[in-house]
Amino acid sequence: MLAEDLAREFPAVDIDGDAMEAARLLAEQRLPGLVVIDESGRPYSVLPGSQVLRFVIPNYVQEDLSLARVYDEKQADKLCSTLAGKRVRELLPRKLPELPVVDPDATVMEIAAVMARMHSPVVAVAQKKGPLVGVITVADLLQTLLPQA
Amino acid sequence: MLAEDLAREFPAVDIDGDAMEAARLLAEQRLPGLVVIDESGRPYSVLPGSQVLRFVIPNYVQEDLSLARVYDEKQADKLCSTLAGKRVRELLPRKLPELPVVDPDATVMEIAAVMARMHSPVVAVAQKKGPLVGVITVADLLQTLLPQA
Repeated sequence: MLAEDLAREFPAVDIDGDAMEAARLLAEQRLPGLVVIDESGRPYSVLPGSQVLRFVIPNYVQEDLSLARVYDEKQADKLCSTLAGKRVRELLPRKLPELPVVDPDATVMEIAAVMARMHSPVVAVAQKKGPLVGVITVADLLQTLLPQA
Repeated sequence: MLAEDLAREFPAVDIDGDAMEAARLLAEQRLPGLVVIDESGRPYSVLPGSQVLRFVIPNYVQEDLSLARVYDEKQADKLCSTLAGKRVRELLPRKLPELPVVDPDATVMEIAAVMARMHSPVVAVAQKKGPLVGVITVADLLQTLLPQA
């Protein structure tokens, strides 16, 4: 079993894609994060859902949580309107989350070692300088590794 | 909309529960991590799937990824047998991942601010010193916050 056999399609967004659409994708597909690809289709980074929240919630509220209480529901509903017209690139944190990438011919053990070492719940599969082939989650890998019940 | 309205059941494991069962739950339910509860049912921490891999993969392989290539599929299949007889407690990293906890009457804005600040894809819902009521994911929250398409 190699990375190319385990890789599955996983919602990826273009680094210049629409920020609001990316947020919708996270919400609708119930994902903790999205893989971000660059202009050439290469895996670039991860957009964690919590990062979208960091973008839309004013800094002073993140710093002093008691201020959050003051917002009523109508104001909260307007928060995400700050995403309108923005690109995914603008949402990404300055210190980019590192997305582990493995070769399509990586073995299960290699994939597991990369995930373990980088504390990552996902790895992207791609040839060197090639486009994203797919994504492997830690759940996929555990399914392969666990003895049959 | 308050935390108690948004909270949903989410697979939680007991800190003294079976490690192999926890790994199976991650694999079967396709989760990136599990909420761990203590003896009194209180939210305690999170068990990330990558942490299970860190437990089963020898340290020298995590440190030198080229060694992973040497493992054949049979050996890889045996990796997870190290989970047998272990408890969830033994899998947790020494530096425990912090699980944000919010009150059942926390507002959407408060929940979002906590997630944003702690870079967390989930928050646990519980009364002070009370048992786990449920879990809210970042996807749940974005669904509530995003303007209807």
